[in-house]
Amino acid sequence: MSHPLKVSPSPCLTLTMSGFSSRLRLSSVMTLEAIRYRSGSLQILDQLLLPHQTVYTEIRSVDDAYRAIKAMKVRGAPAIAIVGCLSLAVELRAGAGGDDPVTFIRESLCHLTSARPTAVNMGRAARELMEHAENESMEKNSEQLRESVITWIEEMLERDVNDNKKIGNYGAQHILSGVPRDSVTILTHCNTGSLATAGYGTALGVVRSLHALGRLKRLYCTETRPYNQGARLTAYEAVAEGLPATLITDSMAALTMRERGITAVVVGADRVVANGDTANKVGTYQLAITAKHHGIPFYVAAPSTSCDLSLESGRDVVIEVRPPEEMTSINGVAIAAPGIDVWNPSFDVTPHQLITGGIITELGVFLPSELQAALTGRLTAL
Amino acid sequence: MSHPLKVSPSPCLTLTMSGFSSRLRLSSVMTLEAIRYRSGSLQILDQLLLPHQTVYTEIRSVDDAYRAIKAMKVRGAPAIAIVGCLSLAVELRAGAGGDDPVTFIRESLCHLTSARPTAVNMGRAARELMEHAENESMEKNSEQLRESVITWIEEMLERDVNDNKKIGNYGAQHILSGVPRDSVTILTHCNTGSLATAGYGTALGVVRSLHALGRLKRLYCTETRPYNQGARLTAYEAVAEGLPATLITDSMAALTMRERGITAVVVGADRVVANGDTANKVGTYQLAITAKHHGIPFYVAAPSTSCDLSLESGRDVVIEVRPPEEMTSINGVAIAAPGIDVWNPSFDVTPHQLITGGIITELGVFLPSELQAALTGRLTAL
Repeated sequence: MSHPLKVSPSPCLTLTMSGFSSRLRLSSVMTLEAIRYRSGSLQILDQLLLPHQTVYTEIRSVDDAYRAIKAMKVRGAPAIAIVGCLSLAVELRAGAGGDDPVTFIRESLCHLTSARPTAVNMGRAARELMEHAENESMEKNSEQLRESVITWIEEMLERDVNDNKKIGNYGAQHILSGVPRDSVTILTHCNTGSLATAGYGTALGVVRSLHALGRLKRLYCTETRPYNQGARLTAYEAVAEGLPATLITDSMAALTMRERGITAVVVGADRVVANGDTANKVGTYQLAITAKHHGIPFYVAAPSTSCDLSLESGRDVVIEVRPPEEMTSINGVAIAAPGIDVWNPSFDVTPHQLITGGIITELGVFLPSELQAALTGRLTAL
Repeated sequence: MSHPLKVSPSPCLTLTMSGFSSRLRLSSVMTLEAIRYRSGSLQILDQLLLPHQTVYTEIRSVDDAYRAIKAMKVRGAPAIAIVGCLSLAVELRAGAGGDDPVTFIRESLCHLTSARPTAVNMGRAARELMEHAENESMEKNSEQLRESVITWIEEMLERDVNDNKKIGNYGAQHILSGVPRDSVTILTHCNTGSLATAGYGTALGVVRSLHALGRLKRLYCTETRPYNQGARLTAYEAVAEGLPATLITDSMAALTMRERGITAVVVGADRVVANGDTANKVGTYQLAITAKHHGIPFYVAAPSTSCDLSLESGRDVVIEVRPPEEMTSINGVAIAAPGIDVWNPSFDVTPHQLITGGIITELGVFLPSELQAALTGRLTAL
């Protein structure tokens, strides 16, 4: 069974799920298949090998997914949740959990959530999925429960792509509302495109929408040390899709803002908390300070699934610290002096005061102060 | 003949000129010999191969030096001037210029100055040396002129090391005056140590002085993309000399300022102009904005030879743009998506308003607004 896609895709929807291809009106450019899912089978594009090698890794189990997430073969908070849940669907299709699928599902989700704790989406998906599984277990037998959970996961995949497209459109409209006739120049950080999400992208989805509207003058992407997601992945997506894009080092962002007429900075999020403080790839905080200094609007693009209203402020976010080797070597080749001490925090928190453009969600664009009301249905805005 | 060193070296003077060693009271740590000069012979440590290989390149001619500077085997504005001038001394020792050394000297200096135009020291040394040569040529024969120019160059080398030590001491005292009892944590960018100067260092000289005083808690050094001078060279110097130092990516500076109690940011300069605007390694501007946001004093450490009062403001500085390959590959291995457009400015200009700590010179520490008066002898300050 391939996944029953119900959405009507836009012409520039990037395929990330090959099982869907026969049902889609295809874009002329079929570029990135980051996640290949058919019922019972999951492969992911190994992002550690990009842009040099295009190698798909078979994910046969929850533990395969855990290790792929931990090793950053797949990264980006939304994509982590999708791959994690799909790996569970693959095991359930094969009958995992036997007569007690609920226990198997619970243990699997717990394992998956621990792989990259800063990214909130996996934790949220785990809670919602667990609630669904427990409710279904009241009425259904093990086999029916497995089917129901698989369907829930496949619908989550579909919803994510739709939400990204809404984010792209809301964000593009909001940015363009400030410059009615001009084309725009956007600066972004890390990778938030098809390779980081279920498809289309969040911040890069906004850029994609601007390009589709013929209003993107240029995208500047930071290389995003230490893992070079910008140089490897965003640049790869930009080249593949013909976006006018220029690569800079992270340290060139301020100069680029001063010299290259940046209209807006748009980044993704690993977690947005109740007051709008945003945890995202390290360097985001610095970009926000720099954008404020230059009077350039700073946007965070994130699906509501990346928002975590249970935390009051960014001070409560646990920041993952990753191994020194990520900074001191590239592809196994040492690039730093042996013996030097290293600090390698993977994320930082941008205070809501610096998010001057707004938070772009699938529900609209909100000021940080409006976010909580918007997500709890008490506010609707563009 | 080895160079007649007259200075009384501090215990922690790092040797950079092996010809001096027998005359020095040595530190217990003999770490970095970046420039090996004896009369008639010049070798430089190839900084492109650091930290993995310690290879000295023989500089037999002005053109050898030009190519080494262009290829960044030697870098740092003061070191570029020293190596350039010493290469001229080597050729003059071998009798270059024949009966018309002045023409040979002029053409050589012109060639050397064109290798890295943003760094002002080489241009200044060239002008002063040319003036000296022309004056001497009134009274001296070719052989005497050559000797006189060689002596001038060797004295320049000596003066530079002395000036750096003064910068180190003035900077350390100024920073410590704000924190009478505590040890301090410094953040620096790029490499400004023994490997970038005639010896001791400018910004890293300040750090060295703080360490010698027992007041350095920790140094944070940015890796300094795209050429990784921080990861390769500053980290190498720090490990070699036992400085407590931690490497971060350029994008972690803001987080480090917020989380790690940075006392001051101290950077070097390729050129400081009359109003205090400072051209330095790309990323400096961003650090200055970020320091201002956190209320952390931002210092530029530079010998007066790096100051260029002929330019009114930083808008007049020509910024060198270097090849894309510096960003898209490391040691010949591609690290970015093929086909991506790249912008690779090597420097940026920090406006004087952001230099909140002061400009540390061998004459004292000055506010940007005081610099012009101080350098023209109308002001003396600590």
